[in-house]
Amino acid sequence: MELDQIKQLVIPTPSKIVFVIIDGLGGVPHKKTGKTELEIADTPNLDKLAREGICGMAEPVALGITPGSAPGHLAIFGYDPLKFAVGRGILEAMGIEFDLKPGDVAARGNFCIVDDNSVITDRRAGRISTEQCAELCRLLDGMTIEKVSISVVPVREHRFVAVFHGADFSSALSDSDPQREGLEPKTVAALNPEAAKSARIVNKFIAQAREALAGWEPANMVLLRGFAHYPNFPKMSEVFGLKPAAIAAYPMYRGLAKVVGMDILPAGSTIEDEFCTLAEHYGTYDFFFLHIKRTDSAGEDGDFTGKVKIIEEVDRAIPKLTSLDPEVIVVTADHSTPAVLKGHSWHSVPFLLYSKLCRSDDVPEFSERACIHGALGRFPATEIMPLALANALKLKKFGA
Amino acid sequence: MELDQIKQLVIPTPSKIVFVIIDGLGGVPHKKTGKTELEIADTPNLDKLAREGICGMAEPVALGITPGSAPGHLAIFGYDPLKFAVGRGILEAMGIEFDLKPGDVAARGNFCIVDDNSVITDRRAGRISTEQCAELCRLLDGMTIEKVSISVVPVREHRFVAVFHGADFSSALSDSDPQREGLEPKTVAALNPEAAKSARIVNKFIAQAREALAGWEPANMVLLRGFAHYPNFPKMSEVFGLKPAAIAAYPMYRGLAKVVGMDILPAGSTIEDEFCTLAEHYGTYDFFFLHIKRTDSAGEDGDFTGKVKIIEEVDRAIPKLTSLDPEVIVVTADHSTPAVLKGHSWHSVPFLLYSKLCRSDDVPEFSERACIHGALGRFPATEIMPLALANALKLKKFGA
Repeated sequence: MELDQIKQLVIPTPSKIVFVIIDGLGGVPHKKTGKTELEIADTPNLDKLAREGICGMAEPVALGITPGSAPGHLAIFGYDPLKFAVGRGILEAMGIEFDLKPGDVAARGNFCIVDDNSVITDRRAGRISTEQCAELCRLLDGMTIEKVSISVVPVREHRFVAVFHGADFSSALSDSDPQREGLEPKTVAALNPEAAKSARIVNKFIAQAREALAGWEPANMVLLRGFAHYPNFPKMSEVFGLKPAAIAAYPMYRGLAKVVGMDILPAGSTIEDEFCTLAEHYGTYDFFFLHIKRTDSAGEDGDFTGKVKIIEEVDRAIPKLTSLDPEVIVVTADHSTPAVLKGHSWHSVPFLLYSKLCRSDDVPEFSERACIHGALGRFPATEIMPLALANALKLKKFGA
Repeated sequence: MELDQIKQLVIPTPSKIVFVIIDGLGGVPHKKTGKTELEIADTPNLDKLAREGICGMAEPVALGITPGSAPGHLAIFGYDPLKFAVGRGILEAMGIEFDLKPGDVAARGNFCIVDDNSVITDRRAGRISTEQCAELCRLLDGMTIEKVSISVVPVREHRFVAVFHGADFSSALSDSDPQREGLEPKTVAALNPEAAKSARIVNKFIAQAREALAGWEPANMVLLRGFAHYPNFPKMSEVFGLKPAAIAAYPMYRGLAKVVGMDILPAGSTIEDEFCTLAEHYGTYDFFFLHIKRTDSAGEDGDFTGKVKIIEEVDRAIPKLTSLDPEVIVVTADHSTPAVLKGHSWHSVPFLLYSKLCRSDDVPEFSERACIHGALGRFPATEIMPLALANALKLKKFGA
């Protein structure tokens, strides 16, 4: 169902929904044991929720498609990731918690080295330190070109973000980064006629950046790529009638939550801190997105045992959540990050929804193998939000 | 996901994918045993693949829809059969391995008998022999009308194919065949204004054919139907980055494979020959479509036991495939052809995918009943290709 259609059915109630998103939770069996991280982990509390709840396997984007973090989360928030895209430049800016405003256009940047013939000799300027990067950013930050002001903010090592603030600034711009050494940086081109002025401004910025960097030792040029607009998505309050809040330790996830209109709560530094934040602010909101990052990081590192331990840590925190007695609890992931693959993967993700009205199935535990046989089967992650709203009695009848 | 979107994610790798398509594999239980052909068949090798792989039930077109061979195969190749159509005239031409070129328009033809008032008295001209048909085709083959050259090629008995080769020849043409005796052949009409010239040419052809056949004993007229363009589909190399080859004993399947850009390999005359061809050419391609026809033929004949035997013959050949150790093996069908129905049917088809990364489910054997409980559930056959590409690590992440 489209967001517009769901919006027509929403009825506000005081009931509460909590989404616990265990990033990259899904796994692939380890050769030795034939079991996934979640299957090995000792998770009595999650298993109890699975037994009393309704389970299935959620498909973040589509069969075989490996989701990035943005599509994975947008799907869970109820926004079809094939329709609602967040561009690379914006995600990079979110990752450093840059305070993006509607209309902003962000690009990913590299400091690099060009020779006297303008040919790139090092795309990453020898991976300068983050401190050096910050120093170079200060040289470029705050320019105004044709009434467009430009922020240049360090990310890490040679990487920075350039944000263009100006009315009608377009993101329909090609990259200046040729993605190879031995070539000159490319002139940024307008990808449609309306973007001509924006392309001119970006090219002026690059020229002025080059002048400002001339003679600097570690890097003497910038490369820009992934121009993207700060998206203007409908807010969760508008489409789902919710008052939503996010508890996420990593900036990018807070940025994604902000895009759909969540308030951002302090996350603290541990998983327990996140659940404490939930308890503290429980009275103020009716929807919580609680994000666990470290399962994904362990998966990316190929640390099977580490991922198992973090899952167990989440499990130990679950009673803090259940003691609040929310009407609906969802536990799932934005995508799989199997330790054996050391990265995001296409595998569908285990899903559980607990509510007193869920009509539970006979899934005995929270695991990939068990959830396959859940009542929800394999289903699109975009359907999670309507199901949660329904279980919170926040949706009225469709049609007469 | 659309082909255009998948195309953006493709990364070429040397990994190999083999699709074994057992035509019409799906069955319906026999009254006496309560088991389908696949459930009765002794298939230890396919069962092992199912146990180590991931299973489900593939839906070629949609619930309740009985697919023809073209939609069934196009879906498996990743092409939505509701968007990518191959017309009847073209399929008939493929069936006799006519060397179709882009722009060609083909129609199915019957030799028939009309009386002195031009009324059809026998739509099939008494089912003349294929030899007689060939003789009559020679009378009509090779005409050129308004720069459009026309091939007339025998199929079987009274059936032939007419192929019109000319720039901008349209297939938006009505049939001349009224599909009933006691009526006159219809004038071919243009179904849109651009087709007017093509309609005129076809009607001239029919008039000239009538003159050429005048006084001939077995048939004195032609009927044309199912005008269709040779489709200009995106090739598998373009959209999936594959170097694909087809091993199929029947011309129509080779024709379908050619439409999506597969190279055609010699199939030999037995199932074992097909697997030998696979082994011989294994180094040259990274995608193989190996087609088994005789299961479908046995199903069409209502030969339950014959179909069981052919399934067992395929099973015995499977070690030839697994010994090649391809990264991904898919075994499924284009549609069901239950012997008890003596024809194609709407029943979803058993599906297995084997790869080291597939995250296997607990399906104990390859059968309709067992695959229902597979991790993939019942899913659209168009998603087979993205899933296979993912398991071969040929797709990068979607979104950041």
